[in-house]
Amino acid sequence: MAKYESLVAQIKHQIESGVWQTGDKLPSLRKQAEQSGMSLMTVLHAYQMLESQGWVTSKSRSGYSIAPRMENVTTSPIKAIRSIESIDINDFIFDVLQATRNPHMVSFGYAYPDPSLYPRQQLNKSLVAAARDLSVSNALDNLPPGNDSLRSIIAKRYAAKGMNISPDEIVITAGALEALSLSLQSVTQPGDWVIVESATFYGALQTLERLGLKALFIQTDPKMGMDLNSLEQALQTHSVKACWMMTNMQNPLGYTLSDEKKRALVELLQRYQVPLIEDDVYSELYNGEELPLPAKAFGHENIMHCSSFSKSLVAGFRIGWVAAGKQALAIQKLQLMTTVTTSVPIQLSLAHYLSTRNYENHLRQLRRKLHLRKQQTVKCLQQHFPSDVLIHVNAGGYFVWVELPKQVDTLKLYHDALAKMITIAPGKMFSSMEEFSHCFRINTSFELTEPRIRAIKMLSSLIQAQLNHA
Amino acid sequence: MAKYESLVAQIKHQIESGVWQTGDKLPSLRKQAEQSGMSLMTVLHAYQMLESQGWVTSKSRSGYSIAPRMENVTTSPIKAIRSIESIDINDFIFDVLQATRNPHMVSFGYAYPDPSLYPRQQLNKSLVAAARDLSVSNALDNLPPGNDSLRSIIAKRYAAKGMNISPDEIVITAGALEALSLSLQSVTQPGDWVIVESATFYGALQTLERLGLKALFIQTDPKMGMDLNSLEQALQTHSVKACWMMTNMQNPLGYTLSDEKKRALVELLQRYQVPLIEDDVYSELYNGEELPLPAKAFGHENIMHCSSFSKSLVAGFRIGWVAAGKQALAIQKLQLMTTVTTSVPIQLSLAHYLSTRNYENHLRQLRRKLHLRKQQTVKCLQQHFPSDVLIHVNAGGYFVWVELPKQVDTLKLYHDALAKMITIAPGKMFSSMEEFSHCFRINTSFELTEPRIRAIKMLSSLIQAQLNHA
Repeated sequence: MAKYESLVAQIKHQIESGVWQTGDKLPSLRKQAEQSGMSLMTVLHAYQMLESQGWVTSKSRSGYSIAPRMENVTTSPIKAIRSIESIDINDFIFDVLQATRNPHMVSFGYAYPDPSLYPRQQLNKSLVAAARDLSVSNALDNLPPGNDSLRSIIAKRYAAKGMNISPDEIVITAGALEALSLSLQSVTQPGDWVIVESATFYGALQTLERLGLKALFIQTDPKMGMDLNSLEQALQTHSVKACWMMTNMQNPLGYTLSDEKKRALVELLQRYQVPLIEDDVYSELYNGEELPLPAKAFGHENIMHCSSFSKSLVAGFRIGWVAAGKQALAIQKLQLMTTVTTSVPIQLSLAHYLSTRNYENHLRQLRRKLHLRKQQTVKCLQQHFPSDVLIHVNAGGYFVWVELPKQVDTLKLYHDALAKMITIAPGKMFSSMEEFSHCFRINTSFELTEPRIRAIKMLSSLIQAQLNHA
Repeated sequence: MAKYESLVAQIKHQIESGVWQTGDKLPSLRKQAEQSGMSLMTVLHAYQMLESQGWVTSKSRSGYSIAPRMENVTTSPIKAIRSIESIDINDFIFDVLQATRNPHMVSFGYAYPDPSLYPRQQLNKSLVAAARDLSVSNALDNLPPGNDSLRSIIAKRYAAKGMNISPDEIVITAGALEALSLSLQSVTQPGDWVIVESATFYGALQTLERLGLKALFIQTDPKMGMDLNSLEQALQTHSVKACWMMTNMQNPLGYTLSDEKKRALVELLQRYQVPLIEDDVYSELYNGEELPLPAKAFGHENIMHCSSFSKSLVAGFRIGWVAAGKQALAIQKLQLMTTVTTSVPIQLSLAHYLSTRNYENHLRQLRRKLHLRKQQTVKCLQQHFPSDVLIHVNAGGYFVWVELPKQVDTLKLYHDALAKMITIAPGKMFSSMEEFSHCFRINTSFELTEPRIRAIKMLSSLIQAQLNHA
């Protein structure tokens, strides 16, 4: 536990045990530093953390005082739910992602795994096989819901997890993003409230922006995920039309919900009859014995389970799907109005590839390599980053969430790094709030070469420079 | 000219020359039949045609009377512009298109050319070549605006037509429909007025429905296209935010605007500063000496030129583009929020195919075959269809627009034909108005085999049955 964290825990405990009451002023930074023997910076970091979690409030010149507690709701702090009526983030995300196109960049901000991990030769063979298969009859098949064999293979992969999903409820889409976006559209109207995590995948924010939806952000812990009490509070206080969540290796924070929590989540949403749009694109990249199940495994009803092959196989094919239950037809109709369907030869080539045993072999290798590279990269980050930087590492996937002292602005860090040909994914991408302006996401899927180590050192000195100026 | 058409022309002339004044009653059907020596049915057909064009109005029991003339506007009849505030057509189109998926259907309703006309072998070779080309660097390239080589090849094809389009303004999309839909979205807000043809491509209606836009339908002649006076009137009377049109081999009517008309159209829209979204997916399928130019060739400003390879090369690849001018960046940002980009290997394979000479050879053959098959199919239609059926045949493309006597309901015909394993594209697909309920579109790109001839005879007897019952 970092020093500031122990101070945070200590003060929380004091508030809960009644040492501090609502309105009480906390000791000044200087006084607290003297009392605790910690640096001024560490105390500031702790106070800011308490503030961001809603335990204290600050007013300029008058210091930090204890925030009013929530009534009825047990431990969820007041800022656990935040609402926003108009999202405007796409321009920023566009600029950040465009920067990753440059092959000369050291792309810590890249969204996909290192492309050199794709099974290119085997994919090539499947493309060739699909080319041979391209017949008149499957040429006619360019309408939703997509290729029959591919949908049937996907259904069989669900069956292997013990999930009973009919091919009839599966719609093939242009990556998971189209699946998520059509799913959300099928159950909402502009102006509706939608629940999302905070921090959340930026695609959720973009889709809310595009569809004119209002967001309820539920505070989400980098280890434990969403607080279900806060979720229920949001369901009680707002007419919520959908909930968009990642249950496995959440992007950007990295946590995987436990089976118990998934079950509780599903029960809660069913009680309030709110559809769940489940983004589950990383679950094949687990690390450990068992593939984590999606929430949909704990109750089919009203859950649209969205996934793709973009993270586990190859990014550029743009093939995803949704297991949409009773929304399957509505989603097909929405798809017909926009993209019609995805490329037929690519669907065929995936069907070919997946019907061989290559995919399981590939996944085993991919998991091992991603795990190894993450370990190496994290070690390097720990070695070079300032000691009051918090590196949140979770099992599986290839993202690491880095939390800097509150006074560091990762948007500035992003621009400074860009000038040095390094990209990061700044916290601003993952929320419409300012609460992650001191965080960023790092892609650990690339080999830790010398240039990458140098880039980590460079990031570190850019961070240090900000800390020195603060 | 059909009999009823000469009566229509005669009465129009009489109205224009002042024989009939606003409010005057036309002779009753029976009286007109006696006077002209025509059948009651022919007179009814003529009166209904005059009504649909806005020259006369009818009230139950009191017969037909002369409609009020437009003031200021020269010859455009009052019903040349119709507005509708809420479009609801997608469910119907979905059902019709799904029926064409069945390979056992005789698909006169099919939207694409006969898939056996695709250069499958050569496309296969390009898919194989693309598979080999799939490198780490182009795997990184999965963001808008799409593959650089493909955009540069498309720009060179514009240059060959004498058009100066930079690759920078080209965005690769999932077929032309995504290009059209993103273009429209980039210049409108929900509730805005948009001008479309009547009849129009159903994709325009679906997009208006999805984006919550209001439609101004401008009456469109199967030979001459849109009446520019009516267009100007619509521009004068409504705050129009965009105009969506097909200038070459319009779907479903088949006409190609003359260069003069295209120039006048562009000037008119520029005068009112209304962006043109130009759907130009059939122009490669011209018949004659010269490729018809798009309207964008007559004035770049504010014209988004959308096309694809789905009609001229292969349907299932789902690759289109827009030459978007100053909207190119806005369109890329919208794409990032929905489908991100189109499949990388498919873009590469098209770039490979197009950089060989195969495409021009293929197009030459395709044009010749489509022309031949259309001639044969039209001959067969003329031979078997009742004589008061109007078959609108235009140069190029592979659609024929069939206009039946007004009392025939082509929605019923569609359902009757479906039961006999024949699909047609009924008029209801192409307008939110009822004015084309007696029309349908026929795909003439398939070889005129015995089963197809039998299907034409079956259609004919289904039409005759309706005429007999009317």
